[in-house]
Order: sequence, then structure tokens, then C-alpha cells
Amino acid sequence: MSTEIETMPHESSAAPTVRLSRRSEWASRGAISFLMQQGAENPGVLSLAAGFVDPSTLPVEETRRAFLELFADETRARQALQYGTSQGSESLRERLVPFFSALEGKAPAELGLTPADFFLTTGSQQLLSIVCEILFDPGDICLVASPTYFVFLGALEGVGARAITVPTDEHGMSPEALDEILSQLADAGELPRVKLVYAVSYYENPSGISLSTDRRPRLLDIVRKWSLAQRIFVLEDAAYRELHYDGEAYPSLWSFDAPRDTVIYTQTFSKSFSPGLRVGFGLIPEPLRQAVIDRKGNEDFGSAHLTQRIVSTALADGAYPPHLEQVKQSYRAKRDAMLAAAQDYFTEIPGARWEVPHGGLYVWMTLSAAVPTGFDSQLFSEAVKHQGVMYVPGELCFAPDQLERNHMRLSFGVLPPDQIREGMRRLAAAVKAVMG
Amino acid sequence: MSTEIETMPHESSAAPTVRLSRRSEWASRGAISFLMQQGAENPGVLSLAAGFVDPSTLPVEETRRAFLELFADETRARQALQYGTSQGSESLRERLVPFFSALEGKAPAELGLTPADFFLTTGSQQLLSIVCEILFDPGDICLVASPTYFVFLGALEGVGARAITVPTDEHGMSPEALDEILSQLADAGELPRVKLVYAVSYYENPSGISLSTDRRPRLLDIVRKWSLAQRIFVLEDAAYRELHYDGEAYPSLWSFDAPRDTVIYTQTFSKSFSPGLRVGFGLIPEPLRQAVIDRKGNEDFGSAHLTQRIVSTALADGAYPPHLEQVKQSYRAKRDAMLAAAQDYFTEIPGARWEVPHGGLYVWMTLSAAVPTGFDSQLFSEAVKHQGVMYVPGELCFAPDQLERNHMRLSFGVLPPDQIREGMRRLAAAVKAVMG
Repeated sequence: MSTEIETMPHESSAAPTVRLSRRSEWASRGAISFLMQQGAENPGVLSLAAGFVDPSTLPVEETRRAFLELFADETRARQALQYGTSQGSESLRERLVPFFSALEGKAPAELGLTPADFFLTTGSQQLLSIVCEILFDPGDICLVASPTYFVFLGALEGVGARAITVPTDEHGMSPEALDEILSQLADAGELPRVKLVYAVSYYENPSGISLSTDRRPRLLDIVRKWSLAQRIFVLEDAAYRELHYDGEAYPSLWSFDAPRDTVIYTQTFSKSFSPGLRVGFGLIPEPLRQAVIDRKGNEDFGSAHLTQRIVSTALADGAYPPHLEQVKQSYRAKRDAMLAAAQDYFTEIPGARWEVPHGGLYVWMTLSAAVPTGFDSQLFSEAVKHQGVMYVPGELCFAPDQLERNHMRLSFGVLPPDQIREGMRRLAAAVKAVMG
Repeated sequence: MSTEIETMPHESSAAPTVRLSRRSEWASRGAISFLMQQGAENPGVLSLAAGFVDPSTLPVEETRRAFLELFADETRARQALQYGTSQGSESLRERLVPFFSALEGKAPAELGLTPADFFLTTGSQQLLSIVCEILFDPGDICLVASPTYFVFLGALEGVGARAITVPTDEHGMSPEALDEILSQLADAGELPRVKLVYAVSYYENPSGISLSTDRRPRLLDIVRKWSLAQRIFVLEDAAYRELHYDGEAYPSLWSFDAPRDTVIYTQTFSKSFSPGLRVGFGLIPEPLRQAVIDRKGNEDFGSAHLTQRIVSTALADGAYPPHLEQVKQSYRAKRDAMLAAAQDYFTEIPGARWEVPHGGLYVWMTLSAAVPTGFDSQLFSEAVKHQGVMYVPGELCFAPDQLERNHMRLSFGVLPPDQIREGMRRLAAAVKAVMG
């Protein structure tokens, strides 16, 4: 072994190349970063883009009370400040049994759930990401609705998975179309690559649409029917489940999965309580559990224990249901403000139409096919630079195989009703300006 | 498109196979889970295994004060309950400029750091994991010390990277040996696969060893010298930096990276303050920053904002330094208890020797080469089942190319001094029983 070290570079002083992993190269670059930058550079802009929750409804008093209650007991306080486990706080998982059972409208005993069935993550986003990590090799296939949640499309890209679009109407993803696509994939020898169907089952981000009740068991039947080469899982993203304003209260896809072997269920307290706590949870079919825990352990050993214990205490002390009611009232009013403004400002615009969401945070607006809405479109520039309003271009929400360019995701989450109305007025003005 | 759906499975009722991603298959299965299970099944066992921090030093009062101060202002409270950013709380990143500068013994202006240079993660573990994600393709190479942090070896496995051992002595990784290995890899045409050198730079987990001051700049020089095909980065894991009990206070590897293009620096508040808050931070060379933010965004949109703000407030209100002093006093006394017990119980055991750590949480104990310590060894069984004491088998801490089987990682983190002494007595009894 040499003891003399030559420390001068062999080569010229040009900086060496930086080589990232292929997975990192696949990851899509920053739609959200771009939007945030636009917001920062155009400070007067009203944002109908941000998926943030309404700051006025954030549970300041509820969190303070829960924290003080938790810290009133020295032992509990120390537990909350110690590491939890990769699976998450036992205390919160115990609370989730009755909490989730109530959402399902069943007694806990009837469902047979235990704390061991629940997994806690940094928002439900982390569980979506972990599911992608443990299931997909590059080239594997995930079936998605059209449109679908654009951040999930990014997670699929990041693992090199292929997103294939299932035709979707006002009742959600079509089971018949799913059957047909799986049949075509089987004919093409691709069935062994199909690992997952992704379904935002309540008030989908971005469309606001919910999968109809009768389609839910049919969708699961078809997935089972085609689980030939291997199990095809269904990832049920129920992030907006609790933000239900009117109309039918849908049963979960999970509730139709009697053998509990197909549906991976995810939900979050980010929308219903506080995103700053970053507490999401999931129910995982048994054969995937160890892989989820191993992955979670490798990523971070478990999410912040303290915030899990705060949510647990808030669920226990009765603070949660009245807070949720208040949140829903606030969003219902803001949804109504956005829909009224759409009626007032967009009705006269040729080709404009929109969905009426019965929950969630978004109105999906479709323009004439001749009006593209992307970051590089005339409309986006007109809206941000001249009218002072921002939206999420709908094209971000489509898999590459079914790209559509004439939609906008409009969020009523952050702004108060009068500013939502003003934002819609500005947006209609931008559309009219672009349409001449 | 068919409208009739055949919902009966084509095949027999045997459950379909579950196919995980190859990355998930690569991930090592639960050394930590196994240890926790042993602990649960043997409740009287004294654990010298757990890397948890001392519960008696957890900052209950400091956290309560910081929380109340934060929530005394309605606006700040709402901010803390809202989403942060993927990069983490601006407020905490502002505090980190003077905090980190003080650790470096420099004025902030001298270092030229700004809040934009810092990245916040769910403990520093998440940043270690993200660095693996963004850098390594399967087959890529990471150079590691011998022994090294076993959880990081798991993260490397999970991305299919190869860990190659650099000979290590009581002054840490040998720069000459690193030079020689890189030369051999270059001769073998493998240099384009070398992406990273991983260095726990303070009181390494598990060995307790610190890289000597004179080796630090030499290590960087060698890494630069061999950054020919591409930039080789150094991941400096400074998790234990603040837990310094006596002896030399080492300058960081980062401090020798004048161009700021080679060292990825990570640190955490888990050991020095509270692991339940899960707040870690890092400094990332510019060409990697966007990839880190994109990956973090895909994983979870950012860690819990509330706990970042609590740490920020604790740093601002003066609670942190006296708490850290108290933590260090407690661990120093427990280290001394473990070393005294080693002296008393292990001196007479042939072949037994141990390192004296000047910081951190671990004593690295070496036994005669004839005494393996693994989960399947006679010693592990004797220790857990008969003597009631648990340790981390040293073999977990070696890359597969340099496996050694006769070491134990002993943690003085959790137990009080008298139980540490009793644990060491039991462990010596187990070793003597096995050695006959």
C-alpha cells in the first residue's frame, strides 16, 4: 500500500461531472416549485393553485389543548419526545381503530381491526411514495384515472413506472374500461407488469369526482379477475374522505375488500386537521406489511412521534369532531363561492364547463379545446402577469398516454370567499382576453 | 369495449403471488425488528443494544416552554400548523446559520452561509436515505469505514449499491488505504461507479472512533484526486457531533471543503435534544440541491412543520445550550460507568478489548476471534436467554467484503449507570460461559 499520496488532481481544473441516479433523473422537475416561484415573483397574484388548507380553520386552540394535556403527564411527555417505532405511535394506532370504524359506520369488533393493522406516515403522501417504492420496478405498470393526482404521477415517474390511463367519466374510473385495458395488456403479454390501480376514491384531486358506489365492488372484482400472474393491488387514496359537504356518503373501496388482500388504504389528518403535523395513516394488506415497515425504517425510522401523540390526544379529548364540522362549513361556503363565481363569470365563455364537487378542495374547469392552459401557454402568462391569478394547469394531471391541455385545477382551499370570487373574475377575464 | 364483465377468477382459488420491487427485495430484513422482538419476548433483559437516548434527559420543560412561546402568537401558531416547504421551515433554517457557525467556531459572515444552504429532514436518517436515492444506481459503489453504521449499510442495500470497506484504525478511515482502493478500482475500470465515501466523522456508530484531524483534509484531497470520471462526494454524518465529552474537538470534514462542492453534511437534533421531534438538517453541495428537494417533495412534501418550529424556538430562547450541557453530563457519567464495568468484568477475559469513546453513545467491544457474537451465535442466546442482557452483534456493522464476527456494539444511551454496570456484569458472565 502506498504511503506517499499525490494530492494534485490528474486532470485539468474543470469541475468533475455530477452523475445522479437514473431514478433521480426520471423524477419530474418541480411543477410545484415553478408555481411557488411564480407566486413569489408576482406578489399580488391570487392563488387558486395552492393545495394548502384554509389558514383560518387551522386548529390552534385544539392543538394547544392537546399538547398541554399530553405534557401534563411527565411520562407521556417523555414518551412523545423519545423515538416512536417505524410503524408509528401505538397510542394513535389504538385511537384509529374506533376513529376509522366510525368512518366505516361499523363497530370496531365488526371490522376486526386492531392497532397492529394501522401504519403511520409523514402525511399520506409518504405512504403513496412507499407503496411505489416497494411495488414498482422500472417498466412496471400502474393504472390511473383521467385526470389524476399529479404528485402521484411524479412518484410513479420517480420509480420508472408506466402510468396507463383508464377512461374516466363523471362517476369515476370505468370498470368496463379497466377490464378492457387489462384484457389488452394480457394479450400484449404485459399483465405481469401490472402491479397497481391508483384510485382517489373521494372528491378526486383534481376532478372533484367520486367513484360511484356501484362501481366500487365492480372495480375490485375486475382487479381480482386479472390478478393472474400476480396480485394486482388497489391503492385507495382517501385523503379528502372527511371533507364531505353534501350528496352521497360513499363507502370505501376498502369496505368491499372482504379478504383484505387487495386494497391499500391511505388517509391523512392534513386536510381535516393540520398539515403542519404531517400525520397520515394507512391499512396495508398483510403480505406488504413487512416491506412497508422496512422501507419506512430505512427512510426515517418513523415520523415525528410528538405530532402523532398530539393527534392521538385530540382524537381522545373530543376536540376533533367539532373542529372538523367547522372546517367543513368553511370549505362548503368557499366551494359555493367558487361555483357561484363560475356561474357568473364563465357561463358566457364558449366551451367552458366545470364539475360540481361534493367534497374536497377543487373545482375542475374545462375550456374550449382550442385554449391550452399549460405553463407555457398564453393563458397562463395572461392570468399570472396581467390579471394576477394563478391556477394549476390541468395537463399536469394526465398520464402521458392521454394528455389533455384545456383544463385547470382551481382550489378553493386557501383564499376567503370574496377573494375566490375576485380570482374567478380575473381568471375569466384572462380566458376572454386569450380567446379574443 | 365489453359491457359484460366476467367477475369470477379464471384460475383456481389459490391466492395470487405478491411481487415486490427488486429494491424492496434487496432491503435487509429487520435487524432492529429482531432486536425489538427479543426485547419484547424477554422482558427482564437489560438492553445495551438500543440506540435510543436517555429518557431522563429528554427536554420536557424546554419543549413545553418553546411550544407555549410559539403558540402565544396566533400567526406563528397557524404557520406552524400549515404545510411548510420541502426544504423545511425558513424560521429554523435562519436559526441554523448562527447555530452551525458556532459549532464551526466561526462568525456566520465568515462562512457565508444563508438559510437557503440548509435542508431539513425527518431526522438526519432521511437525508442519508435521500442521498442514497439520488446518487446510486444498482451496482454503484460507496466506500465505508470498518466497522460502520449498520442502518446506512441497509440503505445502500436498498438501492442496490455496493459497499466497499476502507481499512480503518483507531484514527478512523485510512486516507492511504482509501487512495489505494480507489487506485485499484480505477485499474479495474470501476471508477465511474464510485459515487460516495460515507464517513461518520464524530464518535462513529458503532466504534466510537473519530477521524483524526490530520486525516480529514487528506481524505478530501484523495477524493478530489479520484473525481475523474465524475464527482465523488463525501457524506459526512455528524449525528453525534454535539455529544462531545472530553479530548479533542474535531473540525468538521465540511470545514476543509473550501469550494463546497464535495461534502454533504448531515446532523440531527435527535441525540442532542429529542428524537421524538425528528428534526435533522444538512448542507448540500449546489449541484445536488434540486434533486434533494425533488426527492423530498416526492417522499412527503416536507417533514412536520410544527416540530421544526419548536426546535427553532428552543434555539432562539436560550433553552438549548444548558439542556445540551445536562445531556452531555449524563452521558459522560454513563460512559464512565460502562468503561469502569468493562475494566472490572472484561479485563480477565482473554482477547477482550474495547475502545474508549470521547463522545457519542457506544463502546465497541472486541472478543477473541473464536467467539462469534451474531444473532445465531451461542453467545447471543446465552446473553439474552440466560443472563438477561442484549447487545448489537458487531457483524451487522461490516460491509459483506470485510465481515468480522467477534465484536459487540454496547450502548450506554438508555440505561442508568447502575443498570449499565449490571448489564456489563451479565454480559461478561455470558462470554465466560460460552468460552468455557
